[in-house]
Amino acid sequence: MTEEEILAFFRKKSKPVHREVICGIGDDCAVISRGSFWELLTTDTMVENVHFDFAYFDPYFVGRKLAAVNLSDIAAMGGEPAYALLNLSVPGISERELPLFWEGITTKLANYGAEVIGGDVTRNPERWHLTLTLIGHAPSGGVIFRQGARPGDLIFVSRPLGASAGALELWQQGFEPPESLKRAHLDPEPEIRLGKVLAQENLASAMMDISDGLLLDLARLCRANSLGAEIEAEKIPVHEALNEVSLSQEPIFYALSGGEDFALLFTVPPEKERFLRLKLGSQRLFQIGYIIEEQIIYLIKNGQKEKVSPSGFDHFA
Amino acid sequence: MTEEEILAFFRKKSKPVHREVICGIGDDCAVISRGSFWELLTTDTMVENVHFDFAYFDPYFVGRKLAAVNLSDIAAMGGEPAYALLNLSVPGISERELPLFWEGITTKLANYGAEVIGGDVTRNPERWHLTLTLIGHAPSGGVIFRQGARPGDLIFVSRPLGASAGALELWQQGFEPPESLKRAHLDPEPEIRLGKVLAQENLASAMMDISDGLLLDLARLCRANSLGAEIEAEKIPVHEALNEVSLSQEPIFYALSGGEDFALLFTVPPEKERFLRLKLGSQRLFQIGYIIEEQIIYLIKNGQKEKVSPSGFDHFA
Repeated sequence: MTEEEILAFFRKKSKPVHREVICGIGDDCAVISRGSFWELLTTDTMVENVHFDFAYFDPYFVGRKLAAVNLSDIAAMGGEPAYALLNLSVPGISERELPLFWEGITTKLANYGAEVIGGDVTRNPERWHLTLTLIGHAPSGGVIFRQGARPGDLIFVSRPLGASAGALELWQQGFEPPESLKRAHLDPEPEIRLGKVLAQENLASAMMDISDGLLLDLARLCRANSLGAEIEAEKIPVHEALNEVSLSQEPIFYALSGGEDFALLFTVPPEKERFLRLKLGSQRLFQIGYIIEEQIIYLIKNGQKEKVSPSGFDHFA
Repeated sequence: MTEEEILAFFRKKSKPVHREVICGIGDDCAVISRGSFWELLTTDTMVENVHFDFAYFDPYFVGRKLAAVNLSDIAAMGGEPAYALLNLSVPGISERELPLFWEGITTKLANYGAEVIGGDVTRNPERWHLTLTLIGHAPSGGVIFRQGARPGDLIFVSRPLGASAGALELWQQGFEPPESLKRAHLDPEPEIRLGKVLAQENLASAMMDISDGLLLDLARLCRANSLGAEIEAEKIPVHEALNEVSLSQEPIFYALSGGEDFALLFTVPPEKERFLRLKLGSQRLFQIGYIIEEQIIYLIKNGQKEKVSPSGFDHFA
């Protein structure tokens, strides 16, 4: 089965019976109503040589990134992170590696007010296998789901894309990427602050983070809404450092289909755009297109409008 | 580093700063005060050919057991399980395996009122690698920790021990274990009901579940209290089916050092013993000894009192 088929199985089979479960499988976080607040729960796994390679990571940055990918899921709902559980599963770990890894996780979590409060240690014979589960919260009703977009809503991404995938390709081809690409891959910043503003001011109608590539994640957002999208190639913010390096594809390829950007992808009703710009002041945002009724994604490029099939990262493809 | 060294590192390094964290790393669950109730969080990983073998498991029972080991951690605090997150990490999974695995997890969780509401799917190239995170709750103040025992407190286990380890050895030697041993290994019952009674009636002073063998887990309980224990070999409840099969060691060895019993191990102040028996009515409980001041574990066997060094399962030993 492909990753999408497995996820579809879980979405279909899981029908929460607890009435306080606001949102189960299928969004960036599960959401539970706790009366005075909503609790957010997310979990993400990173596997050595599947998600990261010690050829260009050290244990410190593995820890930072594990924290970041989970923090990004809390950001994608507009929540505030708080507590984490760590599952460390390794063939063995040295007295040099463990403190570095721990320092990486805990400093990154602490930047956003979160900390590790539990976990489990086991052995995975061949490779590091790491899971972090992150628990956050938001005011009751104050989160943005994937579902909620309407035709005509403007589609935004929160920052330039493609840097992480560009760095990865350079390393894999034996080159040292420029600093800004390296940082995007090793130590991405989750958009916690922006997510909270969008949720608390009720500015976005739908939101998720971009972890598997813009096109694939946009397709997921559209599917959650039974809608489509029209986006313009010229409006896609391509990370500028991609123009300075030698890659196998055009820079926009990495922005459209590269993974692990951890930018936010969100939709805004057109009447709220002015208020959005006002609220976010100097923060640059990138409007790349808008939501349409037809359940197709169109890319406008050089004046031509073409259907695109989303491609991005599938673990089992 | 050994598993105990890694765990000791985490215990030492983790000092929760959020005031509402009642209990962090070092107990069966992390505990967060949510005002009107306490939230319990636990997570456990099972790795193919480390924790289970498809030679005698099928995906259904892998799912059941993954649920059980996590449910047992909630039982060990006296809590009520509610929500779970599943991290499924496999080389690939077939259309036959996934529904069986899902059915196993969800039926076992549902027996105790819990359900899967989120998770993550990734690839682990060599083997199944499964993590479940379970969220439960208890009335504020109504949980039993590992810490809380006092010298003179009676030590109890909740049921006969050694069956799971006995089954495993038989399989590994090519024999089919009797049904009761098989069930203990494949589909252990977490002591949710007993845990809740002990916590809600405030009967136990300290409690944990036995996952890595009675002696090793008793040593952990003693260490958490800076105390020791004296236990009697004749009082250790050895699973009766161990007497009917041919094993490499005496049956009591499996009861003392076998893993994965998922019985509760708890201490009771002597003045509460009558009330305990009254409250639990027909449920058999096994008093195996008592807590002592000296930080040593003594085993009394054939009238001889000897120090024992705990041995049990260490993933990295």
